[in-house]
Amino acid sequence: MEGFGVHTSMWTMSWDRAGCEKAVAKAASYNMDFLEIALLDPPSVDAEHSRKTLEAHNMRSVCSLGLPQEVWASHNPDGAVDFLKVALDKCAAMGCEALSGVVYGGIGERSGKPPSQQELDNVADALTRAAAYARNLGLLFGIEPVNRYETHLLNTGWQAVDMIERIGADNMFVHLDTYHMNIEEKGIGQGIIDAREHLKYIHLSESDRGTPGAGTIAWDEIFTTLRAIGFKGGLAMESFIDMPPEMAFGLSVWRPVASGEAEVMENGLPFLRNKARQYGLI
Amino acid sequence: MEGFGVHTSMWTMSWDRAGCEKAVAKAASYNMDFLEIALLDPPSVDAEHSRKTLEAHNMRSVCSLGLPQEVWASHNPDGAVDFLKVALDKCAAMGCEALSGVVYGGIGERSGKPPSQQELDNVADALTRAAAYARNLGLLFGIEPVNRYETHLLNTGWQAVDMIERIGADNMFVHLDTYHMNIEEKGIGQGIIDAREHLKYIHLSESDRGTPGAGTIAWDEIFTTLRAIGFKGGLAMESFIDMPPEMAFGLSVWRPVASGEAEVMENGLPFLRNKARQYGLI
Amino acid sequence: MEGFGVHTSMWTMSWDRAGCEKAVAKAASYNMDFLEIALLDPPSVDAEHSRKTLEAHNMRSVCSLGLPQEVWASHNPDGAVDFLKVALDKCAAMGCEALSGVVYGGIGERSGKPPSQQELDNVADALTRAAAYARNLGLLFGIEPVNRYETHLLNTGWQAVDMIERIGADNMFVHLDTYHMNIEEKGIGQGIIDAREHLKYIHLSESDRGTPGAGTIAWDEIFTTLRAIGFKGGLAMESFIDMPPEMAFGLSVWRPVASGEAEVMENGLPFLRNKARQYGLI
Amino acid sequence: MEGFGVHTSMWTMSWDRAGCEKAVAKAASYNMDFLEIALLDPPSVDAEHSRKTLEAHNMRSVCSLGLPQEVWASHNPDGAVDFLKVALDKCAAMGCEALSGVVYGGIGERSGKPPSQQELDNVADALTRAAAYARNLGLLFGIEPVNRYETHLLNTGWQAVDMIERIGADNMFVHLDTYHMNIEEKGIGQGIIDAREHLKYIHLSESDRGTPGAGTIAWDEIFTTLRAIGFKGGLAMESFIDMPPEMAFGLSVWRPVASGEAEVMENGLPFLRNKARQYGLI
Repeated sequence: MEGFGVHTSMWTMSWDRAGCEKAVAKAASYNMDFLEIALLDPPSVDAEHSRKTLEAHNMRSVCSLGLPQEVWASHNPDGAVDFLKVALDKCAAMGCEALSGVVYGGIGERSGKPPSQQELDNVADALTRAAAYARNLGLLFGIEPVNRYETHLLNTGWQAVDMIERIGADNMFVHLDTYHMNIEEKGIGQGIIDAREHLKYIHLSESDRGTPGAGTIAWDEIFTTLRAIGFKGGLAMESFIDMPPEMAFGLSVWRPVASGEAEVMENGLPFLRNKARQYGLI
Repeated sequence: MEGFGVHTSMWTMSWDRAGCEKAVAKAASYNMDFLEIALLDPPSVDAEHSRKTLEAHNMRSVCSLGLPQEVWASHNPDGAVDFLKVALDKCAAMGCEALSGVVYGGIGERSGKPPSQQELDNVADALTRAAAYARNLGLLFGIEPVNRYETHLLNTGWQAVDMIERIGADNMFVHLDTYHMNIEEKGIGQGIIDAREHLKYIHLSESDRGTPGAGTIAWDEIFTTLRAIGFKGGLAMESFIDMPPEMAFGLSVWRPVASGEAEVMENGLPFLRNKARQYGLI
Repeated sequence: MEGFGVHTSMWTMSWDRAGCEKAVAKAASYNMDFLEIALLDPPSVDAEHSRKTLEAHNMRSVCSLGLPQEVWASHNPDGAVDFLKVALDKCAAMGCEALSGVVYGGIGERSGKPPSQQELDNVADALTRAAAYARNLGLLFGIEPVNRYETHLLNTGWQAVDMIERIGADNMFVHLDTYHMNIEEKGIGQGIIDAREHLKYIHLSESDRGTPGAGTIAWDEIFTTLRAIGFKGGLAMESFIDMPPEMAFGLSVWRPVASGEAEVMENGLPFLRNKARQYGLI
Repeated sequence: MEGFGVHTSMWTMSWDRAGCEKAVAKAASYNMDFLEIALLDPPSVDAEHSRKTLEAHNMRSVCSLGLPQEVWASHNPDGAVDFLKVALDKCAAMGCEALSGVVYGGIGERSGKPPSQQELDNVADALTRAAAYARNLGLLFGIEPVNRYETHLLNTGWQAVDMIERIGADNMFVHLDTYHMNIEEKGIGQGIIDAREHLKYIHLSESDRGTPGAGTIAWDEIFTTLRAIGFKGGLAMESFIDMPPEMAFGLSVWRPVASGEAEVMENGLPFLRNKARQYGLI
């Protein structure tokens, strides 16, 4: 995983044949190094078609997901592992390099209390087994801390490192996201400093999830810290525009956060790429 | 409303006699110009005791609240008005200058969809009546937009202005909060620019709700914009430490966001006051 | 003066026929609203040619200059006025809207001591006469405070306002420059706040005078303050690349501050224009 | 060299007995880890008195200087070496840990052209000899790049590294200064990234050389980068207030940049120390 990529949210939230073909062609047209595929419904994926489509455009890929409520690892580790195995099998069949995201729970999971020892034990148990399964498939396996409203389990880079070091699997990595870091970290570079060698992937997402460069994120602070720790992983632009209603609910996006695809791709993408180049990251 | 104050969350979330006495004495010891009282349970307040305690320390005050779910204005405008009238009566009896906050709904209210016309009509209806009631009591009445996870109704300064201009009550004002602005606004000064003459109160709260100056908020950007619009209202420091569990749940604070009261008061308070003085706001 | 323009330094430092034709055509090709002409040697200008060239491209213009040492206003106010009259006559003949810049002295003028009362009196005297002459020609007349190394006379927005209010000429205005503000102001918005209604022109120049967006300037802080004061004047991008040696000396630019014209125009210009649009300034 | 210190400019620019006694006592009263002594006139120093005074307060020290014009290394490398040897002898006799600063030239040295090969060869020659002399005395020897107006020789972290790597002396180090970085670097963390393991000392100086925290410096960006590269060196607060006229000239400080010592020590010092602690640097 390295280079500059983009999340499929720019073009589709349905990884069916049509969505795949559109997103891969679009990503290629912007000279993306890789595509991050939102793997919302793993069993439905035509992996062979995805693989061929990606190969036809010479496009590398990473998958990401959140777990459905019935298989949140904090309460149903076995169910989580079963779900993740299917997802990992699909990743491997598609030729992806990694599975990452909120692989330990759901976007919106909150017990109302700080994470309990039992919840964290269950998460560690599920991730241990899923990571081993991923390793056998030659896949990297990442965990993404998200903000306090999206989970009560892992909110900071430090908490993700703590979980990974507890598990001890060498194919696991920390996946940060600037949108969440902006809410949770004590200084937006702190999560990067804490994750350091564990950090292999980062979502570049604006403070309102709109057009990068047009919000409150301190981008120079992020890029200088990435450069200073010697970051070598993947940089993935993420913006949530034109979401289907159920996705908008999950993400709590109640209004358009950008005027449309053009604004993100014509303003936000060059902004981020120029910064990444300035700091020698691509 | 003007000067530099602090939210009672620093010292108590229970506005009973003991909480009142502690918070007022503490606020006075830090030379606060006013105290913002979290009016979570208006009927229980001993307003006469509060008034005397505040007067004894020559401490001005503002009250803030969110509505209980059964009286969210979007679905029960009559219930909201009844609740707000009690709160406003208590404010007046305590000698407060204003009632503000999420007076239109609950912290955590989300329908899963963008606000509907009916919801906004109901909110406007309730606020119109409550504002008129407040005016008769000589009180200002504010509305605070909060982030997308805390409500789907009003997230930005612009949306708050739109609601106020629709209602047209001259005792209504916009109450911003830097914590929410950091997530919602396109540039952290944007909400201030949009609210402009309607802006009479602002929560100075760090990006993680911890110690001001130790997070990701661009404080100079906020203060320069406040100065540039000619802001004359109240600046209220807000931090959520040592919350009781039910409050922590409402705010989704799952870990200590500061080491304790001392860190906020000894580091955060001087930081904010120095900035406010630098920009001529106090 | 309004809209978004560019300094001729991008394309020429010689305002002869060839330099004029090149710069005007280039500015038009980037859809600039106006061109800022470096009027280094006023008597040599073929004003009629300039006027026709500007009109042919429908390009508005502003002139700027610094005084030669022998006519620094602090020591030779009569000489300064004579020099400025020639420059103003040329401005009028070219159809320019204003003359601005370090019209009170030289770039590099430093006595080694704080400005003396006599120096400031001489400056005020010269500017009073030049402003009156400009008004008769229908021209605006601006003064640009620059950093401590380039002059000891006027370094901040506040000092420029003070001089203008002393003179009391209604065609005078403050001309700020983000490069200098970054060194001199207490918070980069401070000079804008201090200049407020006097501010009618601002150089958008990066901290190293290279590509805008690739240095240390806090651009959002600048734009939010401009918007908040209701700025209506001209925004002029300025970068000093490929300078002739004597200009490089004057500006103390010892190394290339950008890779070339393309970097500034393809990266820096869209960055600034996007920001100006985001804040509703163009 | 490690910990948090302060430049003697806060209290004296004359390192005579009285100045020494005052500055050391003041530094100790603020619990400084070390004092940076401005060694403007090395031969005049009573090293034995300085050593005893420093020891009496258990105060570590570093010396810094710029060369007089007649011994600028670019044109008089032998003279520079002779001057530096005296200074190094004094440093050793005082018990200092290092000599640093603009040891290669003068504050204000500018030829009007980019540095010539001969100038850089002369500088390298002088520094090679001085570094060897320092090593024999057990002293570290640093070079501080300063802004374009103060020298044309070394303006960026990268240029300082280049010089050090050319010389190859293991007791040499890069000494950065945030005030200069704010003008010269492409992103204020860039010089830190470039200097990396060579960086052992940094001046924490505000953009106008006034009160730290009250200017345009992006402090979080600096501290996150320092932490991310694993910085272990000395952090020295520097502010230039109440300068004698000849020093004010050298530094081009024409107006008070802070209201006085109290503002810097009561506002600026806690600001910097809190940031340094937040990022785990002290």
